[in-house]
Amino acid sequence: MDFTKVIRTIPNFPEEGIMFRDITTVLHDGEALHTAVDMICSQLEGLDFDLVLGPESRGFIFGTPAAYKLKKGFVPVRKAGKLPYKTLSKAYDLEYGQAIIEIHEDAIKKGQKVVVVDDLLATGGTCKAICELVEEIGGIVEAIVFFIELEDLNGREVLKGYNISSLVKY
Amino acid sequence: MDFTKVIRTIPNFPEEGIMFRDITTVLHDGEALHTAVDMICSQLEGLDFDLVLGPESRGFIFGTPAAYKLKKGFVPVRKAGKLPYKTLSKAYDLEYGQAIIEIHEDAIKKGQKVVVVDDLLATGGTCKAICELVEEIGGIVEAIVFFIELEDLNGREVLKGYNISSLVKY
Repeated sequence: MDFTKVIRTIPNFPEEGIMFRDITTVLHDGEALHTAVDMICSQLEGLDFDLVLGPESRGFIFGTPAAYKLKKGFVPVRKAGKLPYKTLSKAYDLEYGQAIIEIHEDAIKKGQKVVVVDDLLATGGTCKAICELVEEIGGIVEAIVFFIELEDLNGREVLKGYNISSLVKY
Repeated sequence: MDFTKVIRTIPNFPEEGIMFRDITTVLHDGEALHTAVDMICSQLEGLDFDLVLGPESRGFIFGTPAAYKLKKGFVPVRKAGKLPYKTLSKAYDLEYGQAIIEIHEDAIKKGQKVVVVDDLLATGGTCKAICELVEEIGGIVEAIVFFIELEDLNGREVLKGYNISSLVKY
């Protein structure tokens, strides 16, 4: 399936000069959504892992059906203050200011292997913070799969050393 | 499966006196997550519908795997300002202040049948706003499925007239 025919591009969102790749047109289309999830799972074939991680909130959209299909657990990575139990957190730099991500401290056990699924690889900052957090807990990042990759932003460079794949490149 | 053995209860979150039902322990457990999604889909058996709707962000967690399994499209319902294309919005009252939800104006076509999937039925306010928004666009709410229902909060009364089911009652 050529997803570039289904993804909608919206110029100047959220700010002037940005070509926003809108995945809702993929989600609205049952066949496209199903194919996207199956293709994300195909990238993980042959890998041995315990859990799928996905960051709030668009990472939940592809991460949970992938976990469902592969019969793995799903670990939500959330913004600060959203998770109700004891958390481990990681701050990372954005263009302006900082962001903080959190996971529950019992979400990953030492030695467990995880894969990260997200909708978009842009600068790679959020994903790098997720990987560092997983490793601080003693988990192992086996692979990272993105639905879309924005190649000009060089997120792969930031995530160098990880097993990265993406379904659609711009 | 007795989900009450897997759901974690956290007293006094997010505020004093509230018993928060933490679903992350269900998500972390691959078998529990798979069973929860299958049981949500079972509630929809025999119904004719076009789309699954889920509100940001925990509604994405059960809504997208249900859409995936049933080969339907998924419509994300988001907080104000998050969706990139033209939106329709609905304000509704919270205990303190107001909240606004949005969907893309092309997400549901007139006459399309939708089901709403969410993690929790509490007061029913968010779900009522979603149903009203769907109906203003000309869509039809065929059913609403919650993973957890807090019976004391009488959300069913607010959603009277809709086909509602839930997997776990407190």
